[in-house]
Amino acid sequence: MKKIIIINGPNLNLLGMREPSVYGSETFEHFLSQLQQNYPHLEITYFQSNIEGELISKLHEVGFSHDGIILNAAGYTHTSIALADAIRAIKSPVVEVHISNTFSREEFRHHSYISAVAKGIIVGFGLKSYELAVKYFE
Amino acid sequence: MKKIIIINGPNLNLLGMREPSVYGSETFEHFLSQLQQNYPHLEITYFQSNIEGELISKLHEVGFSHDGIILNAAGYTHTSIALADAIRAIKSPVVEVHISNTFSREEFRHHSYISAVAKGIIVGFGLKSYELAVKYFE
Amino acid sequence: MKKIIIINGPNLNLLGMREPSVYGSETFEHFLSQLQQNYPHLEITYFQSNIEGELISKLHEVGFSHDGIILNAAGYTHTSIALADAIRAIKSPVVEVHISNTFSREEFRHHSYISAVAKGIIVGFGLKSYELAVKYFE
Amino acid sequence: MKKIIIINGPNLNLLGMREPSVYGSETFEHFLSQLQQNYPHLEITYFQSNIEGELISKLHEVGFSHDGIILNAAGYTHTSIALADAIRAIKSPVVEVHISNTFSREEFRHHSYISAVAKGIIVGFGLKSYELAVKYFE
Amino acid sequence: MKKIIIINGPNLNLLGMREPSVYGSETFEHFLSQLQQNYPHLEITYFQSNIEGELISKLHEVGFSHDGIILNAAGYTHTSIALADAIRAIKSPVVEVHISNTFSREEFRHHSYISAVAKGIIVGFGLKSYELAVKYFE
Amino acid sequence: MKKIIIINGPNLNLLGMREPSVYGSETFEHFLSQLQQNYPHLEITYFQSNIEGELISKLHEVGFSHDGIILNAAGYTHTSIALADAIRAIKSPVVEVHISNTFSREEFRHHSYISAVAKGIIVGFGLKSYELAVKYFE
Amino acid sequence: MKKIIIINGPNLNLLGMREPSVYGSETFEHFLSQLQQNYPHLEITYFQSNIEGELISKLHEVGFSHDGIILNAAGYTHTSIALADAIRAIKSPVVEVHISNTFSREEFRHHSYISAVAKGIIVGFGLKSYELAVKYFE
Amino acid sequence: MKKIIIINGPNLNLLGMREPSVYGSETFEHFLSQLQQNYPHLEITYFQSNIEGELISKLHEVGFSHDGIILNAAGYTHTSIALADAIRAIKSPVVEVHISNTFSREEFRHHSYISAVAKGIIVGFGLKSYELAVKYFE
Amino acid sequence: MKKIIIINGPNLNLLGMREPSVYGSETFEHFLSQLQQNYPHLEITYFQSNIEGELISKLHEVGFSHDGIILNAAGYTHTSIALADAIRAIKSPVVEVHISNTFSREEFRHHSYISAVAKGIIVGFGLKSYELAVKYFE
Amino acid sequence: MKKIIIINGPNLNLLGMREPSVYGSETFEHFLSQLQQNYPHLEITYFQSNIEGELISKLHEVGFSHDGIILNAAGYTHTSIALADAIRAIKSPVVEVHISNTFSREEFRHHSYISAVAKGIIVGFGLKSYELAVKYFE
Amino acid sequence: MKKIIIINGPNLNLLGMREPSVYGSETFEHFLSQLQQNYPHLEITYFQSNIEGELISKLHEVGFSHDGIILNAAGYTHTSIALADAIRAIKSPVVEVHISNTFSREEFRHHSYISAVAKGIIVGFGLKSYELAVKYFE
Amino acid sequence: MKKIIIINGPNLNLLGMREPSVYGSETFEHFLSQLQQNYPHLEITYFQSNIEGELISKLHEVGFSHDGIILNAAGYTHTSIALADAIRAIKSPVVEVHISNTFSREEFRHHSYISAVAKGIIVGFGLKSYELAVKYFE
Repeated sequence: MKKIIIINGPNLNLLGMREPSVYGSETFEHFLSQLQQNYPHLEITYFQSNIEGELISKLHEVGFSHDGIILNAAGYTHTSIALADAIRAIKSPVVEVHISNTFSREEFRHHSYISAVAKGIIVGFGLKSYELAVKYFE
Repeated sequence: MKKIIIINGPNLNLLGMREPSVYGSETFEHFLSQLQQNYPHLEITYFQSNIEGELISKLHEVGFSHDGIILNAAGYTHTSIALADAIRAIKSPVVEVHISNTFSREEFRHHSYISAVAKGIIVGFGLKSYELAVKYFE
Repeated sequence: MKKIIIINGPNLNLLGMREPSVYGSETFEHFLSQLQQNYPHLEITYFQSNIEGELISKLHEVGFSHDGIILNAAGYTHTSIALADAIRAIKSPVVEVHISNTFSREEFRHHSYISAVAKGIIVGFGLKSYELAVKYFE
Repeated sequence: MKKIIIINGPNLNLLGMREPSVYGSETFEHFLSQLQQNYPHLEITYFQSNIEGELISKLHEVGFSHDGIILNAAGYTHTSIALADAIRAIKSPVVEVHISNTFSREEFRHHSYISAVAKGIIVGFGLKSYELAVKYFE
Repeated sequence: MKKIIIINGPNLNLLGMREPSVYGSETFEHFLSQLQQNYPHLEITYFQSNIEGELISKLHEVGFSHDGIILNAAGYTHTSIALADAIRAIKSPVVEVHISNTFSREEFRHHSYISAVAKGIIVGFGLKSYELAVKYFE
Repeated sequence: MKKIIIINGPNLNLLGMREPSVYGSETFEHFLSQLQQNYPHLEITYFQSNIEGELISKLHEVGFSHDGIILNAAGYTHTSIALADAIRAIKSPVVEVHISNTFSREEFRHHSYISAVAKGIIVGFGLKSYELAVKYFE
Repeated sequence: MKKIIIINGPNLNLLGMREPSVYGSETFEHFLSQLQQNYPHLEITYFQSNIEGELISKLHEVGFSHDGIILNAAGYTHTSIALADAIRAIKSPVVEVHISNTFSREEFRHHSYISAVAKGIIVGFGLKSYELAVKYFE
Repeated sequence: MKKIIIINGPNLNLLGMREPSVYGSETFEHFLSQLQQNYPHLEITYFQSNIEGELISKLHEVGFSHDGIILNAAGYTHTSIALADAIRAIKSPVVEVHISNTFSREEFRHHSYISAVAKGIIVGFGLKSYELAVKYFE
Repeated sequence: MKKIIIINGPNLNLLGMREPSVYGSETFEHFLSQLQQNYPHLEITYFQSNIEGELISKLHEVGFSHDGIILNAAGYTHTSIALADAIRAIKSPVVEVHISNTFSREEFRHHSYISAVAKGIIVGFGLKSYELAVKYFE
Repeated sequence: MKKIIIINGPNLNLLGMREPSVYGSETFEHFLSQLQQNYPHLEITYFQSNIEGELISKLHEVGFSHDGIILNAAGYTHTSIALADAIRAIKSPVVEVHISNTFSREEFRHHSYISAVAKGIIVGFGLKSYELAVKYFE
Repeated sequence: MKKIIIINGPNLNLLGMREPSVYGSETFEHFLSQLQQNYPHLEITYFQSNIEGELISKLHEVGFSHDGIILNAAGYTHTSIALADAIRAIKSPVVEVHISNTFSREEFRHHSYISAVAKGIIVGFGLKSYELAVKYFE
Repeated sequence: MKKIIIINGPNLNLLGMREPSVYGSETFEHFLSQLQQNYPHLEITYFQSNIEGELISKLHEVGFSHDGIILNAAGYTHTSIALADAIRAIKSPVVEVHISNTFSREEFRHHSYISAVAKGIIVGFGLKSYELAVKYFE
């Protein structure tokens, strides 16, 4: 059974409450339980933190044993070299996802330190971005 | 039955022959026939041109009747405002795909005029990028 | 009788259908026939193509015999050195026109390769931009 | 009877004397009287100042009562946010005009703070630029 | 009794009439008379000009005798080195204020020549920006 | 009774010890207790952390119940998109404050990710910057 | 017998007519027939198109069988990533040539997408640039 | 007898009072009377204004009759295209002078719009900069 | 006995496992114990964290009592103004070290916020960079 | 008999020893003697120096008497305005050559101060670049 | 008797021969002997080299004994930090001079590393620039 | 016995005399003789030149026989591609050193062409920078 982990970065704990016009009104917990039901043949776990260093530590922890990592680094996407270095340092493939289309938003959201070291990038499909990443690892 | 079209831009007619270390050695035609077999409930058609203006005209032609357009504009991705304007001008949703991870290649491949007007973006999964886009429209 | 040609670039074939809030809902054909009626003392012809190279070839064709060329290069305005070189290569004066105010839109629409080699530039008056150019050549 | 005002910025009082190869050798006064004769059905008035703030005050004064403002802000075009803010603050439509083709001159003349807030822009037709603007308001 | 002067730059004479969604619909005169009533222990005077050089001259005039200067240089904020030099040349402390949040508006409003030489900066509180500045000098 | 919270970012725990020529020699604790005494009609609480993610979590915690948030994000001001996203995600108005005049210091302190999403910005008044923000919420 | 092809891009069909002070007054056809006479031991063929995509297709067509390709991409030199990608995709060596010294002309002619993927570059010798390229392949 | 005029821009009326460490403590009036005494064979007149447009008008007034103009445009040096245009529009040669070494001060003082159109430039010799300019015209 | 502390930033806990071609295959713990043996006359302690704020807090804790701090901030080197501010805020001298030659790697690793406030910088000697720093404090 | 001189800049004395994968393993002396044998109707001399000023002096010495100068300025190509000025100052035509394809190497090798003042440029053909230049002067 | 030295940089040995339209047709030797005659109360010596390092060594040699140094670094002006460092390292005041108006020439001549460390700068007066510098030291 | 050479670039011959606040007041000769005494088991030689090309030639001379080269290229550090190319061309490892902390000085001292090709970099420890480099080679 393949082990997949979804790692969410800062402010994504507020999903459903935060700017619904941009991010939708569904909570991530609700979406996750549906995802787990729809893909019972995969072990899908979840981690969220607002702390950059905790995201790094989690990548270290899972990055030598998991079959796939789905990372939405949110605001750290555009500023964290340390997070990208963590991906360089581990073995498991990482797929970068974003809920909104970051390329049609502010200029500072157009550059991602993560992309260059990700296996692939999925952007702009709402919560379905996560599901497409799961399908990739399926 | 949903109508999906895959539109490939310049040099993608050489897939399988061209820089196999970057783009793989499978021809697009072979990949396409498998895709059509795997998704018999979808009508998947295909168009390729090396001419920017023909890609634009094709977008006009299908952009008011198709359920989904999967566009790999290849080299025009980074230089064609006219192509992006064609997407703005039509109704059908467009998903931008790339075979290679454009963000880990030359600097001039990091910017896409298409992304800001695409429904979503899928980058770096090899030919599987097209399949994930099909799944989105499925 | 003065010979004037209007040359329209990519996506302008969709005028009336395309983003009416930006470009209005009148088709170019309708506008053109009115223009021809209002200026019966001028021979006003029309050409449109989505293909950059066809626009160049048309400029070569008419550029040594016509009294005036009115060019809306649309998306190619901002990216085509080749088109500007075609204007440098011919004899007839070229007036650059734009329907919308390109300077109040995206940053990438603020620079035109055409402007430096045009006789004059008329921007932002809707379809009336074309008419003002006709008046200039009248 | 429509009220139109032409507002000229710095150094345009020297027209006819100043760099004739760029700006021609006709004085603006002479041109204006001909314009008034040719468009007797319009009330065309004129204001010139070398002082940025006086141009702003004049825009305030006429900007709620006139049918059209034709502004050649000359050197202030490229540097004055305050002048552009004045246009934002008033109701009358403003057409930006330039005598020479500013886009074929020095780099610093390629950007205009006025353009983004103008109704339309007419550049490079010599004094005829003003007349085309009058025709727009006619 | 402390002497405070409020100096307003270009277009602020139109306050109440100008872009109410950005600047509100209260006139500055009305606001000022309330301010003077609420702070009777301060001598609060007022000056407005659309002319950059008159703002400079006023700073010279009051800058060696007043206890505080509250300056909203409006459009000149972003372009006037001369105005900033005037602040460098005088003795009285200057507080820079802005009614709207200049940092959430156009890019060209994000840089202020005034800020580096101001005692402090207060931005975005509507007309209350002026009152907070008064409180600082109180 | 209005609930106001002051949130201080990295290194501000050293206030009074750290670069006194820039930040003064008063500890924040001493300043805070005076502030609370002077504004007994307000409930003023305080939080400091050197950890970006803890600042984000605190904003989430208080951002739906407090009447005002006064944020000095210190060094994170210039680098943290995640912190700015937290402000976008919550409901309570945030006032950005800085003790020193960041605009007269190093170039990299001139840009703030916080400013564009703050209600208002108060910079350069020493510890009095906090008090002016309190007065705004008063 | 070695097979060499010369491929000319946009506007080069006008050679002899176009800006003679920059490009000389000899037609390319005349030059070509002399070249073929002088190098009878080589098979030298010729292709010209104003259409970027046709240049790409021609490169695909000849790029696996010819001993040498001499490419003057003219205006597309500076803007076409797709053309450079075509060179990457084929096997035959490509020599980039320019008639005029592009480095002593406008800034936008100083960068070439072709150069990085060309075997070599020959610039500024008039039509003799083509002959030097032929000598290289000889 | 040669006619020379010295034109001083904004804030130079405060010379002697303003930042003595940068500009010295001598008033310009005192310096001027000495200069006039030392060069009795020249007619040296003087004009100062804080208003950009008045400096332009003065250049127009003297620019067709004087043998030499010595211009210290102060803060307008770095921002005024209109002032540089005035120099282009007149006949008399203009020497640009600066009291302080503008190149060892802030970055924004390193560029001058005046320099490109001045006859010559003299920078950094204190008030002696003016005297060297006088010697040039002597 | 001098007190020296080595502080390592994000991902350096993986030393020996992480990209051995860049960072070598020795663990830091092994290296450290050898270092402590070779410099028995120095008290060398060690701290590592992936969390930026914890690195800041540690600098505060040791920065008023230790004789030397050796800091490898890893990925935070290039992005953390807050960390550099911590160094500004403390008394102990800080030597910045890097294992790999950051200047021969990606462009984004060429700038360090730490360097300007460090006592000295040692880059590129592998783990020997730390030893050279120890020798400096010896 | 035409007089041609080849001038080589810094580090080219090491040719054959230096980075053979980039520059080949043939010494320049060996190549030169073959060249002289193959072109006995030309007088081909040679000069090499690592000193920028000696290259300039040599250009002065030969620049009024020789029929052609072939210059490989190596590292000075990208940094020396003085060398380009020497070419401007002399009469003999200068052809710029490079052994490797400078445009496919580091960014800082893409700009040449020499190119704008050279008669022509030949880049990337190995030592054959020199021979093609000789053929041009032949 | 004051000791003044004039130091000329690269290519200035060709004065009179080199680009007379820019630099005039008088040799420097002729100009110098006149200067020495006109200022018999000064000891004026002269040095020229095309070698950057020799200019530096000469500055070291004279920089602790001479009353004034007049330096025209020509092409090195814009590229040599080492030359500017030599000026920083010596005691004698250095006046930077240029014959032509460097600010009306190519962009790369607008920046001077020398200016920031020169006592003063004199640009554009032809050979008279040197004489004005002599007058300053007189 | 290991052979180490220290190579110093421009202006370092003035050490002890030159800006003592930046570089200290000890002469390099004095420092060197102490260094040689302290490391009698190493053969430490020394070379200094103000001429870029002589530094290159020295690198060539020692670069195939010495065990270590310690290079302080001073002002050429930031401008010399030719010097960096010399390091690429030789075999001996080069350690780049600087006396002062170049990163806390002017912006133009922050970039080094040497660093990317050096074995390691040591900056800011005064003359001790050289000693640490010696220890590395020891």
